[in-house]
Amino acid sequence: MSEPSPVRLGSTSTEPSTAYMHQLDEEREAALRTQSHPGSDPTGAPEALRSRLEEEVDKAGPELVDLMIDLAEHPEVAFEEHRSAAAIVRILEGHGIEAQLGVHGLDTAIRAEIRGEGAGSADAPTVAVLSEYDALPGIGHGCGHNVIAVMGLGAFLGLAELAKKDPSAMPGTVVYLGTPAEEGHTGKEHMARQGAFDGLDAAVMAHGYPGYDLADQVWLGRRTLTVEFHGHTAHASAQPFMGRNALDAASLMYQGIGLMRQQTPPSDRIHAVIREGGERASVVPDHAKLDLYVRSQRPETLKDLSRRVEDVAHGAALMAGVGVTVTWDHHPPSLPVRTNDALTGRWVEAQRRRGRDPLPLGVVSTTLAASTDFGNVSYRLPGMHPLIRIAPADVALHTREFAAESTSPAARSAATDGAYGLAATLLDVLHDPALAAAVAEEFAQAGGAIDVPSFFD
Amino acid sequence: MSEPSPVRLGSTSTEPSTAYMHQLDEEREAALRTQSHPGSDPTGAPEALRSRLEEEVDKAGPELVDLMIDLAEHPEVAFEEHRSAAAIVRILEGHGIEAQLGVHGLDTAIRAEIRGEGAGSADAPTVAVLSEYDALPGIGHGCGHNVIAVMGLGAFLGLAELAKKDPSAMPGTVVYLGTPAEEGHTGKEHMARQGAFDGLDAAVMAHGYPGYDLADQVWLGRRTLTVEFHGHTAHASAQPFMGRNALDAASLMYQGIGLMRQQTPPSDRIHAVIREGGERASVVPDHAKLDLYVRSQRPETLKDLSRRVEDVAHGAALMAGVGVTVTWDHHPPSLPVRTNDALTGRWVEAQRRRGRDPLPLGVVSTTLAASTDFGNVSYRLPGMHPLIRIAPADVALHTREFAAESTSPAARSAATDGAYGLAATLLDVLHDPALAAAVAEEFAQAGGAIDVPSFFD
Amino acid sequence: MSEPSPVRLGSTSTEPSTAYMHQLDEEREAALRTQSHPGSDPTGAPEALRSRLEEEVDKAGPELVDLMIDLAEHPEVAFEEHRSAAAIVRILEGHGIEAQLGVHGLDTAIRAEIRGEGAGSADAPTVAVLSEYDALPGIGHGCGHNVIAVMGLGAFLGLAELAKKDPSAMPGTVVYLGTPAEEGHTGKEHMARQGAFDGLDAAVMAHGYPGYDLADQVWLGRRTLTVEFHGHTAHASAQPFMGRNALDAASLMYQGIGLMRQQTPPSDRIHAVIREGGERASVVPDHAKLDLYVRSQRPETLKDLSRRVEDVAHGAALMAGVGVTVTWDHHPPSLPVRTNDALTGRWVEAQRRRGRDPLPLGVVSTTLAASTDFGNVSYRLPGMHPLIRIAPADVALHTREFAAESTSPAARSAATDGAYGLAATLLDVLHDPALAAAVAEEFAQAGGAIDVPSFFD
Amino acid sequence: MSEPSPVRLGSTSTEPSTAYMHQLDEEREAALRTQSHPGSDPTGAPEALRSRLEEEVDKAGPELVDLMIDLAEHPEVAFEEHRSAAAIVRILEGHGIEAQLGVHGLDTAIRAEIRGEGAGSADAPTVAVLSEYDALPGIGHGCGHNVIAVMGLGAFLGLAELAKKDPSAMPGTVVYLGTPAEEGHTGKEHMARQGAFDGLDAAVMAHGYPGYDLADQVWLGRRTLTVEFHGHTAHASAQPFMGRNALDAASLMYQGIGLMRQQTPPSDRIHAVIREGGERASVVPDHAKLDLYVRSQRPETLKDLSRRVEDVAHGAALMAGVGVTVTWDHHPPSLPVRTNDALTGRWVEAQRRRGRDPLPLGVVSTTLAASTDFGNVSYRLPGMHPLIRIAPADVALHTREFAAESTSPAARSAATDGAYGLAATLLDVLHDPALAAAVAEEFAQAGGAIDVPSFFD
Repeated sequence: MSEPSPVRLGSTSTEPSTAYMHQLDEEREAALRTQSHPGSDPTGAPEALRSRLEEEVDKAGPELVDLMIDLAEHPEVAFEEHRSAAAIVRILEGHGIEAQLGVHGLDTAIRAEIRGEGAGSADAPTVAVLSEYDALPGIGHGCGHNVIAVMGLGAFLGLAELAKKDPSAMPGTVVYLGTPAEEGHTGKEHMARQGAFDGLDAAVMAHGYPGYDLADQVWLGRRTLTVEFHGHTAHASAQPFMGRNALDAASLMYQGIGLMRQQTPPSDRIHAVIREGGERASVVPDHAKLDLYVRSQRPETLKDLSRRVEDVAHGAALMAGVGVTVTWDHHPPSLPVRTNDALTGRWVEAQRRRGRDPLPLGVVSTTLAASTDFGNVSYRLPGMHPLIRIAPADVALHTREFAAESTSPAARSAATDGAYGLAATLLDVLHDPALAAAVAEEFAQAGGAIDVPSFFD
Repeated sequence: MSEPSPVRLGSTSTEPSTAYMHQLDEEREAALRTQSHPGSDPTGAPEALRSRLEEEVDKAGPELVDLMIDLAEHPEVAFEEHRSAAAIVRILEGHGIEAQLGVHGLDTAIRAEIRGEGAGSADAPTVAVLSEYDALPGIGHGCGHNVIAVMGLGAFLGLAELAKKDPSAMPGTVVYLGTPAEEGHTGKEHMARQGAFDGLDAAVMAHGYPGYDLADQVWLGRRTLTVEFHGHTAHASAQPFMGRNALDAASLMYQGIGLMRQQTPPSDRIHAVIREGGERASVVPDHAKLDLYVRSQRPETLKDLSRRVEDVAHGAALMAGVGVTVTWDHHPPSLPVRTNDALTGRWVEAQRRRGRDPLPLGVVSTTLAASTDFGNVSYRLPGMHPLIRIAPADVALHTREFAAESTSPAARSAATDGAYGLAATLLDVLHDPALAAAVAEEFAQAGGAIDVPSFFD
Repeated sequence: MSEPSPVRLGSTSTEPSTAYMHQLDEEREAALRTQSHPGSDPTGAPEALRSRLEEEVDKAGPELVDLMIDLAEHPEVAFEEHRSAAAIVRILEGHGIEAQLGVHGLDTAIRAEIRGEGAGSADAPTVAVLSEYDALPGIGHGCGHNVIAVMGLGAFLGLAELAKKDPSAMPGTVVYLGTPAEEGHTGKEHMARQGAFDGLDAAVMAHGYPGYDLADQVWLGRRTLTVEFHGHTAHASAQPFMGRNALDAASLMYQGIGLMRQQTPPSDRIHAVIREGGERASVVPDHAKLDLYVRSQRPETLKDLSRRVEDVAHGAALMAGVGVTVTWDHHPPSLPVRTNDALTGRWVEAQRRRGRDPLPLGVVSTTLAASTDFGNVSYRLPGMHPLIRIAPADVALHTREFAAESTSPAARSAATDGAYGLAATLLDVLHDPALAAAVAEEFAQAGGAIDVPSFFD
Repeated sequence: MSEPSPVRLGSTSTEPSTAYMHQLDEEREAALRTQSHPGSDPTGAPEALRSRLEEEVDKAGPELVDLMIDLAEHPEVAFEEHRSAAAIVRILEGHGIEAQLGVHGLDTAIRAEIRGEGAGSADAPTVAVLSEYDALPGIGHGCGHNVIAVMGLGAFLGLAELAKKDPSAMPGTVVYLGTPAEEGHTGKEHMARQGAFDGLDAAVMAHGYPGYDLADQVWLGRRTLTVEFHGHTAHASAQPFMGRNALDAASLMYQGIGLMRQQTPPSDRIHAVIREGGERASVVPDHAKLDLYVRSQRPETLKDLSRRVEDVAHGAALMAGVGVTVTWDHHPPSLPVRTNDALTGRWVEAQRRRGRDPLPLGVVSTTLAASTDFGNVSYRLPGMHPLIRIAPADVALHTREFAAESTSPAARSAATDGAYGLAATLLDVLHDPALAAAVAEEFAQAGGAIDVPSFFD
């Protein structure tokens, strides 16, 4: 049995330990040695068609890279992507494709369609490929949406050229959707509520990533809330007893969230800042404000977490004897991504044909999770959102360094590889009814579509 | 402007500073130099009568001191004062006074009455003098109730002997009440609910004190509560997310009370301990329990404080997602003491005749406040609860040292001085209708009687 | 865009109870009925001289009232009182008195002196009267410094005119000090460090008050501190474990202060706001900042409280694994006021001659305590700081309503009554060596002068 | 006596949501469909030998099952496994094997050895198989150590019988270690410090599990600590300012841990209970005590977490102005398990020959993690600790229900399957130098042996 330790008077180092980062590195390296994606069994599209598709996509390559660079050089933030959207529309029109700019409720959203043989008949699928093109304020394309834009556009152009030459090569309808305002504004949910995804059988997109090609990754659902506490001011020295302290409630809420974390699933996240915590120390503050995010890996767990965080706010108000206002969702909630493995398997097969080998879920730690508004699409219809390497492993997303990598040689390769992967996945669905059925069946088994706008009510 | 201080790594001393105690000492010494009690203007009883009364009380002196020592040597705790009560009854009977043992709902309560000329008529007052005689567990008469007992008894015997010789000397009724279980059990409230104080015009008692004679002191109202939180256990390592942590709520409540103290009047007190805070660290605790006291200087402020503390409990439960049970008043609440200054003025005048000079309120800091069940009497009818010196200033109440002082020479002087003071005060009320009216008027002006049993509902 | 969720209220009532305010009202009314100031025994100045002084002060009355109104109409905040100071200097010069503007280190400080018979000799006292004239930002003269200014100036002018006609009527030296920047900037401490109070035997001033004339009131010592916590940012969702959360430390410090309040004397005050608590919820904040005040009734208890609050800051940093910077005293600390009762007694006697009856300490609750930089004077030499009624009882200090009252008829009466009171007090000291000795002896007994600049080191 | 007030519930629903448990179920089911263990490439022992080994193990089957049932019926807790250990020794002796009872510092520890051809030579491996046999207080074999005991014993008997008939079939040394007191007492660490694992090349054991066969699972390192805070008592109403509140520190520490959880890796665990939080509400508590566990997935991260939690304790003490004692490791720390994949691969191959298919790490959520003292072995030498199904999936470890399952038909199959798996793994190591080298190399690559007793100093 150890002796009581001597009383220690403080710690000189406040630097976070890197031990856990090293553990993640080791675990990833070990997994890289033993794990690979199982790929996909269905036949998909005929091989000859795939080859023709690949040619068409590669042909568009230079045009895609030019656009990728152009967008990188002229970043535009959410809802202000006018120049970016116009550039895309111009290219579509250059290929003889009619495009709508300003659709589904957003000025900078784009929609175009190509219809092959049998399009519109009951058993001809309608599928969509998505492009994002908004940048981060002050950072530029630090999330690589310029690469996303051209992967989606390239896939669509490849399929369009294929169909132009032979409508039977594309038995169904392919929709191109330019989806603005992914960063913090949930643009896709706005579009969804205006019918953007109605009638679709699948929607696909791909996203850049540092270091690895990933067939899949966890994306957490996310909601924002602002909590304001309303008390009464008082002279903090002369008669504090006549005050009701809004900051007391804010600090109690902050503490309550800390304690609650023990009793939340490991994939839940709650993060909070105190935006307003009093003006002058001599006055009992009558107003305090927190901004919070809540995140979780499933819509159901996010709903539960939302309810609990709201209880924390109300409980803190009751404890401090103050009023409270909880304002949810300054922008619509992001749902987590429900990956359709049947689709993802086809992406993996297509990537392998391009010399890439996307890793299965879990090789790169799923704890390093962020959020995307594609989640809201993926709970409405089958979707996939694979990641493709465009930067070294040590360049973090949402940094200026990543923005610089968004036109790197790696990004240029990814542009056509990714475009081909998306196009080939859709071509497989269009040609292989068994695959299309498996895609739909998997989605249904996972619970089917949920009514996103009313889900958190 | 000062420079940022270097980061300091801990403090070696955890000893509380005595600076504030020194301040209180200095403030008291300064006040002693300038302040004295204004005394009392009314005539009171004729001086000749007072002298006869004084003789009777002094005659009882040796008997009182013997009883005081006997009680000190045989301390009995709340509700178990059988020997003590019997000893008092024996003395009363020795004086030819019939006494009831076991009245007003308590086995160890005593009631006796003496009726002088005109007793029972509309304008003949009925007044009471009280004795306490319970001791502290493990400490004995550390609150000096043995002295209280003989001051009350001596006052009654003095008046009784006076009336025996000349009924016109005591124009009214004097009731003697032996009131058990003051310490933590609110014995007087039990008795009050069984009619002990019905029909009385005033009730008086005196209490021993270290260092000083005080005409008045603050006594805070006090309630107790137990708060229990009810959650769900879970394996704290494997699936803490399936737990609801009752200790989270307990700690949040504790923190909430800490913050709330800023917004309570300076005379409020809330003190809390966590009696149950989990059994094993490896299990999320489903049960936690706090014991709390709330105290305040007025019934209304105590009611407000009670409501707020209950809100804190409910808010903490809501924050932690657990259930809560709040159990108030294991024993009936103690009200604060509402001192009747008209009565107290007569006590001061009587004490001055004995060579004492009770200090007015505030000379000895009112922050050093405790509670007494005489408070519940004082909100039903006019009352006084002065303090008389029986020990040196540095001997704290509720200690073994104070118990030892409860038979000191100072305590012996206090026994007869106090008995005379109580008796003279009542004699003044019986003889001076203007005084009796002033006593009643003051009580009415302060809000009159309150319905104690239902007050906190 | 989704709508904010409907608001749910935490508690049905969040309005502070007025029960304690009613208690204070009742206690004050009761004290008003029984308590009065003991006044003062020494002879003071000869009555004939007092009468001549009174005439001189009254003669200056219209001039004082004009200045009082002028200052009210042109309020200037701390360190910017150029117009106000110039107006005072102009009046002094109008009376043939040479005045220095910009002395003792402050541009808007004023010094003037008048020397009577024997001035400078060992037993001829040197005494000072003070004027404040800074206003509150956005509120104007909500603390009535315009009234303070003219009371001090009027006292000086009265004594000056007396001396001018008969140097033997003022046997010693009277110094006039215009003291800027009382509000939050501790102007007098700046001046003291530049010798303003060197060689003085006493310093007096008076302050306006709502509802009552008070011979004395508690003024708490006050220090300010800013605590900054320094952590490490991290993506709050992807890798929060690489962050060190500065807001955690800030909230813990806030909680720790809440708990500490139970274990501080009732006259201590700590109040805090969180000025910076993170920018964006998605980032673990690396910086957080609190502004705090600590107050206490004695320099020693304030020093102890300072040490404890600093321990709280350091402990919170250690708990959160972050660095901490504690910055004390953006402006020099304010000490509490150590009232010289020998001086105050003379003020009371003088006020009674004007038909006023200043209340002794404690009639108006001492819990309603604020701070003043006159405290720093009062621990260097004997001083007094009585309060004089200039507004109704329900008009709080530091409000626009009080500013409006600062030129009311009550303020106009106070201007000359107060000027006379200050002048008469000083005249008594100059003429009565026993009084002067008592003033000095009381100051020495209370501990004598303390070295203010180094006191908190 | 007043009635307790009616109960108001904090929240309408306090029942934990099962949404995350459903998510884990779905994720596991999805993983079961696609993932399987990669198995192992090396040759291992010749197939003929494996078959003979299997026969020997199966022959011992009835004896093993009898012992398994006997232990279940006579559970003995940590350090008191006298009957259990004697039963094992009796069986060993029945097979003609000499066994030491009471070795490596523990009365109920067992050691036996069998030496085959070449044993002791430089290239002949020495390997060990372990048995646990302690039960849980009040629950019996709720962790299935009776099954563990016979799997280890059966493996040893199988190898011993093989060697007895043909020493060349077992080219090296096999050690049997009976390791008491796994539950909460870290028995293996006590033995290790007395040389139990010195000179070994590998050590293996297997553990029962509900629902699944797992090749591997996460086992967290675990330390215990007790934190005691030492303050000063005071009367909580009369002079709380003279107290230093130990419960303040305890509650602050609890709050600090809550907040710290955000900044710890997802595989860290801290859990705490407040064991002592004051006796009487009327007294400021001078003593408070917390019991805590800290857990982490790597020794380095556990060391970092330990340091941080100790900082929290010291910081809380500093905040509350109290002293602190931190007592670590009432029993030696448990390290996490460092699984040797080269060994585990052989186990998987052997299990597949028995018709089982152990799942790779991650199929069953790694968040459902507990601790084992085998961790301390696994950081000294290569080891494996696979799990074998002995109960349905919905029967939790450490329950009476699991104890009941510890003699189920599933447990009986596991007894011989597990015994064979352990024996076959060791046989492979003894016969295949390349495998032995790979085992050693993997261990070295992972950092090699650490000095466990001094690791946390």
